[in-house]
Amino acid sequence: MTDPSATGRLTRDLVSRVKLTDLEACYQDLHRHPELAFQEHRTAGLLADRLESAGFTVTRGVARTGVVGVLANGDGPVVWLRGDMDALPVQEATGLAYASTVDGVMHACGHDLHVTWLVGAAELLADARDTWSGTLVVIGQPAEEGSGGAAAMVADGLHRLAPRPDAVFGQHVAPGPAGLYPHTPGLIMSAADDIHVTVPGVGGHGSRPESTVDPVVAAAYIVTRLQTVVSREVSAADSAVLTVGQFNAGLRPNIIPAEARLGLNLRTQKAHVRERILAAVRRIVEAECQAAGCPAPPTITTGGSYPATVNDAALDQEIAAVHRELFGHDTVFDFGPAMGSEDFSLLVPAGVPYDFWFVTSTPQDVWQAAPGDDLAQKLDAVPGNHSPLFAPDLSVLGPGVQTLVSAALSRLAA
Amino acid sequence: MTDPSATGRLTRDLVSRVKLTDLEACYQDLHRHPELAFQEHRTAGLLADRLESAGFTVTRGVARTGVVGVLANGDGPVVWLRGDMDALPVQEATGLAYASTVDGVMHACGHDLHVTWLVGAAELLADARDTWSGTLVVIGQPAEEGSGGAAAMVADGLHRLAPRPDAVFGQHVAPGPAGLYPHTPGLIMSAADDIHVTVPGVGGHGSRPESTVDPVVAAAYIVTRLQTVVSREVSAADSAVLTVGQFNAGLRPNIIPAEARLGLNLRTQKAHVRERILAAVRRIVEAECQAAGCPAPPTITTGGSYPATVNDAALDQEIAAVHRELFGHDTVFDFGPAMGSEDFSLLVPAGVPYDFWFVTSTPQDVWQAAPGDDLAQKLDAVPGNHSPLFAPDLSVLGPGVQTLVSAALSRLAA
Amino acid sequence: MTDPSATGRLTRDLVSRVKLTDLEACYQDLHRHPELAFQEHRTAGLLADRLESAGFTVTRGVARTGVVGVLANGDGPVVWLRGDMDALPVQEATGLAYASTVDGVMHACGHDLHVTWLVGAAELLADARDTWSGTLVVIGQPAEEGSGGAAAMVADGLHRLAPRPDAVFGQHVAPGPAGLYPHTPGLIMSAADDIHVTVPGVGGHGSRPESTVDPVVAAAYIVTRLQTVVSREVSAADSAVLTVGQFNAGLRPNIIPAEARLGLNLRTQKAHVRERILAAVRRIVEAECQAAGCPAPPTITTGGSYPATVNDAALDQEIAAVHRELFGHDTVFDFGPAMGSEDFSLLVPAGVPYDFWFVTSTPQDVWQAAPGDDLAQKLDAVPGNHSPLFAPDLSVLGPGVQTLVSAALSRLAA
Amino acid sequence: MTDPSATGRLTRDLVSRVKLTDLEACYQDLHRHPELAFQEHRTAGLLADRLESAGFTVTRGVARTGVVGVLANGDGPVVWLRGDMDALPVQEATGLAYASTVDGVMHACGHDLHVTWLVGAAELLADARDTWSGTLVVIGQPAEEGSGGAAAMVADGLHRLAPRPDAVFGQHVAPGPAGLYPHTPGLIMSAADDIHVTVPGVGGHGSRPESTVDPVVAAAYIVTRLQTVVSREVSAADSAVLTVGQFNAGLRPNIIPAEARLGLNLRTQKAHVRERILAAVRRIVEAECQAAGCPAPPTITTGGSYPATVNDAALDQEIAAVHRELFGHDTVFDFGPAMGSEDFSLLVPAGVPYDFWFVTSTPQDVWQAAPGDDLAQKLDAVPGNHSPLFAPDLSVLGPGVQTLVSAALSRLAA
Repeated sequence: MTDPSATGRLTRDLVSRVKLTDLEACYQDLHRHPELAFQEHRTAGLLADRLESAGFTVTRGVARTGVVGVLANGDGPVVWLRGDMDALPVQEATGLAYASTVDGVMHACGHDLHVTWLVGAAELLADARDTWSGTLVVIGQPAEEGSGGAAAMVADGLHRLAPRPDAVFGQHVAPGPAGLYPHTPGLIMSAADDIHVTVPGVGGHGSRPESTVDPVVAAAYIVTRLQTVVSREVSAADSAVLTVGQFNAGLRPNIIPAEARLGLNLRTQKAHVRERILAAVRRIVEAECQAAGCPAPPTITTGGSYPATVNDAALDQEIAAVHRELFGHDTVFDFGPAMGSEDFSLLVPAGVPYDFWFVTSTPQDVWQAAPGDDLAQKLDAVPGNHSPLFAPDLSVLGPGVQTLVSAALSRLAA
Repeated sequence: MTDPSATGRLTRDLVSRVKLTDLEACYQDLHRHPELAFQEHRTAGLLADRLESAGFTVTRGVARTGVVGVLANGDGPVVWLRGDMDALPVQEATGLAYASTVDGVMHACGHDLHVTWLVGAAELLADARDTWSGTLVVIGQPAEEGSGGAAAMVADGLHRLAPRPDAVFGQHVAPGPAGLYPHTPGLIMSAADDIHVTVPGVGGHGSRPESTVDPVVAAAYIVTRLQTVVSREVSAADSAVLTVGQFNAGLRPNIIPAEARLGLNLRTQKAHVRERILAAVRRIVEAECQAAGCPAPPTITTGGSYPATVNDAALDQEIAAVHRELFGHDTVFDFGPAMGSEDFSLLVPAGVPYDFWFVTSTPQDVWQAAPGDDLAQKLDAVPGNHSPLFAPDLSVLGPGVQTLVSAALSRLAA
Repeated sequence: MTDPSATGRLTRDLVSRVKLTDLEACYQDLHRHPELAFQEHRTAGLLADRLESAGFTVTRGVARTGVVGVLANGDGPVVWLRGDMDALPVQEATGLAYASTVDGVMHACGHDLHVTWLVGAAELLADARDTWSGTLVVIGQPAEEGSGGAAAMVADGLHRLAPRPDAVFGQHVAPGPAGLYPHTPGLIMSAADDIHVTVPGVGGHGSRPESTVDPVVAAAYIVTRLQTVVSREVSAADSAVLTVGQFNAGLRPNIIPAEARLGLNLRTQKAHVRERILAAVRRIVEAECQAAGCPAPPTITTGGSYPATVNDAALDQEIAAVHRELFGHDTVFDFGPAMGSEDFSLLVPAGVPYDFWFVTSTPQDVWQAAPGDDLAQKLDAVPGNHSPLFAPDLSVLGPGVQTLVSAALSRLAA
Repeated sequence: MTDPSATGRLTRDLVSRVKLTDLEACYQDLHRHPELAFQEHRTAGLLADRLESAGFTVTRGVARTGVVGVLANGDGPVVWLRGDMDALPVQEATGLAYASTVDGVMHACGHDLHVTWLVGAAELLADARDTWSGTLVVIGQPAEEGSGGAAAMVADGLHRLAPRPDAVFGQHVAPGPAGLYPHTPGLIMSAADDIHVTVPGVGGHGSRPESTVDPVVAAAYIVTRLQTVVSREVSAADSAVLTVGQFNAGLRPNIIPAEARLGLNLRTQKAHVRERILAAVRRIVEAECQAAGCPAPPTITTGGSYPATVNDAALDQEIAAVHRELFGHDTVFDFGPAMGSEDFSLLVPAGVPYDFWFVTSTPQDVWQAAPGDDLAQKLDAVPGNHSPLFAPDLSVLGPGVQTLVSAALSRLAA
């Protein structure tokens, strides 16, 4: 266990060495060149190159594009720092000078910032290796956005490539007035499941629906019927979200297609709520296909499931204290569990404590202008993760390095 | 005015010269190589080549891929025969030996048969030019399926390229026991309109719908609400169909997209019904976007409008009589107006009478096996136009040539 | 077979004896005192009294409130004239001086006019019995509005109480410019079925839906899903209407009730369409209850079924000719089958020809003011049967007597 | 401030005097004779009589049926004990020997138990008036179930009829294994609003919907659309419930009625969430009426609004400690705010601290048999308040007296 004041002082001393202009260039470069899941070749190359330059032993191509950098620096604890690297199929609408140059792809979830923070923390800790001893592992993970990058890295040997950690740290950029560090000593992110549904119809001419089974209509009723899952079947005291993010059917107005495809995403925080909802989705989709007279049952497959992220309470309180020491008491608080999800925990070997926290990044002028009287209302009004307008304030570049460095030092410098 | 018996006799004499094996090869070749609207290069080339070989003066590339062949054969009336050439974005599922070789494209509306019939009729009439005098015009039209090929050919000079006709003839393959020739002396095909709708939402993270406006949900409610247009706002005595053939929104289950797009197709038979429905669609789509709290009004554009096809009554009765003479009294009857639509009438110069009829093509074994006690029920049960299973019986190759030849001769040999 | 001209002349001679002021008083009295199905005591009493005064032998209380009057007048044919007597649970909103005095009950379907016409025709034919010979039967039927009064009268002995007829006549007031007499030589009114649905839920506190199964929500989705029956499963060439006229569930906003009840009404004109729709309703209701997770299957009962009314073609053409003779050629025409339904045909003994026609009654000023360019459009815009604003023009009192008298005389005076 | 141990001991001493058989008879009598809001004449009479017998000065008929009993017993604090008296329009389905004898009315929310507890506590404290000094006020409130009985009593002079209290206590029976006492030191019950909606249509014949505007269909789409309020517009971290408890439209299957009426109930726990939902309901209802083409805007009225019930934290902790002392440490715990609502707080004069708690009453065998692994799951599975099966275990009769007596003594005996 560390002394927050000492770790804070040490971090503050070190951070003065960070070249913010370099990090800014790094971030803007990554933002300009977003890459989708398992295609993060350029991003991974940049991270791996800088880790190698800083003295890390680097393994590339873990789970296709993952990066594992190990800096052995004498006896002592092993700490893993993890960042994710993939972008999203979103058409950027920020109008930023450094907006995405790739049509239809955008770092709309801030993973470019995560990589930049990793670079900054890795280089700083390498540069200051005289202040600590132990082993630092830096992990660039591909495909966090529903594609299972963490599990893929473990399957591809991560636990052999890096020594077993004493603690694993991760962080995520989030909406909120730039400069807050929400910490939760327990459940912090929800479980997530993707559910893919195919509604089989009988295609035909748009003018003769009576000779078809219209899957567009069937799927539309499914979407409206699914709204009752949260509105009628989940207690108001529980938290759950069921989103239909994809609805794809048909190529021409005058042809009734032969099928419709839906992509659902579910967020839950309790096992029994998750099970009830999964059963309700199946019940509703199957029954609606019967109502439509579909020629076959629907296909319903669950995939991309991420478990809830549950911080080690003691570790979180320890790191929260360090971050309070660094940034001020009021900047660190427990905002409760988020509906967002992560596969961060799937990277962590069984039994190892981990801590995951947020760094808020909404520019102050955007925040001030947002309507609402309290944090929750303003959060609904500012561009959040996955929005085409998501644009973190650059003022968080330095602090996001400090959060990682101080967390690492809380163990390595103890 | 012609004598049905004489025309029938003449047609029967001529048709013995048709080489059915050649037509069958032609048809299967076209079926294997379907081409989408305005891309019918191979199809048009085949038609144009055969017309030229038969002695027609041919203009290619009218409205990109249209073909106009003129055979001047002395004084007399001018007759136009028209066929359409485009295929559909349907994935063929017939399992036929000569099924489409183009992924996702299929002659699911039988335009390959229409072209084959044109070839057969053109060659036969050219070969028998001693039996008639006047001018025969054969038109291969691109892009009938909602893309406005007829209007495009007129805009590209069709009425200058071909002499003004005394009569224009066209025909369409249709479901029904192979060997019937439905004729209607008036309204035979409905008006059609495509309506494209964009529902604007506010995109964001699938776990935080409260900070978004979900366009998938909004569009799904629109689809369900649009069902009331026909069920509640159209008199049961009127005929109308409103189909949502396209619903496209979203790329990932966990991202709420920024918009959803719908493609609607409307069929009507009366102007005031069409106007009421167009107004109702607009009213519903706009109101549903308000219900959803959309950040902007929806975009609603009407395009691809085809008028109703209304045969000249006298001409139709005349040709019906010829076809009865050829195929037997019971094979020709008035089945009433169809909900299908055509831009055939848009080719025809103002004031010129035209006639359009159907040729049924469902194989007898498929028809016999279809459930139902009467024609209407069985029609709902067999694969119709635009179905991935649409497969006309080859027995209709010869008769479809005869129908065209006899119609032409009813004027040219008179 | 009769001579239209002779019948017309005779009718015109007779009708001059009708006291219109008396009929008007009779009609207004009936309109002021509407009575629901099988409760038409006052109405039936009035009809029976006047028939007796006119010399008819009257049986009262047939099927509770039905009236059968027989006037035997020598040898000759037997003719039945039938009118229905029941009112509707509609709150009148006409503002007429002679509006209903019964709260929530109204002659919104004009059966008061039907009774008045019967009275006028019966008295006139009795008064003029020297002009004809045979037997005249006048029937006042209870409970036409979905409650099966015709079948009830037959079950209660109608066919024993009255001699077997040679022809049966009935007529119905309808929207349209007052003074038209639509006749159809075949299918004139549609088949009707009432379908009663009970959706079983699990009741509970409005604040804890997760511990209930909400039948209000389930039934609402059923109503929206049922819209697809007509919009997707019925050919546009067929005529069908499916209405949910009743939705009753719950007594307080904060209690989720234990069940919801729906009342549906179906109109069809072909047996196979009726069967397909009945099956679709059952399929949809059952599947929606499964989608809702209802604790038991729904109850679905079909009742109040009326068959299609199909006039004897020859008889209708004969009577139409008489009516043309009386009112002018253009006042009688075939408007095609209506979606309305009748149990008139259920009164008629098997094998007996019958004819049923309409008398339009919309006041000319209302008709002129109605928007629309043609009959069909205007019909949608004026208050029709069952509307709280339904108010027939009194100018039709005399003509509606003439139609019946002339129809009767066409047989009795022949 | 009192000593929990002393209060507990005193309560235990006193409670031995309670005649449970008498309370059981009282409870079963009340359960057999439920009375709806503001009609609690028999219930109020019973309460008032027993208070008078016990020595209270009683005012009857406060807000029609309310009862206020005052027992002045020397100097000291003033304590109010409040119970509500009204039953619900629910058809009892428990099959109990003492089930409701009133058709369609049931004590489905346990107010009969509340009155019985009041009787027991009032008689016990009157009998033991030597153990305390001060003034005890017992209030029997009418019309808690959405009809505003508390506000009505205040309007009718309650605050003049009873001396200003130092503390006000109330309690509610709740599902959960009989013998628990959930206490919450702050927000314990949600705000509630009733929203009444009238959807104006244009009535007419069920066979001619095109000449009407169908309000049944419009209201059904409203119900389905309202599901999105909670599913899409409320953060998963917030608690809200929107229930449509009433849907009434139409009297016959074949008449399209002129309007439909909906009764909604809303539960919220934050002012901004309540406001957002009220605005969303208005937006959706208005827009759906536009989508339907309604002839006039809908009527939307909010009534029966109850504020959130927010316990005085210090007072609640004090009483919770007394209850723990009485029933054991594990029987008292904070289960968090409920979605249920109360007008209890509206009785309380401004500035006076109050405390409200629950007494669980599910019979142990029912609880054990309920499926689920944890409290929340089982709560969803057992009959809760407002269920036709709601049946509190009689074992809670004594404890519910003790909770009130000990709360009163915590102040009066101090």
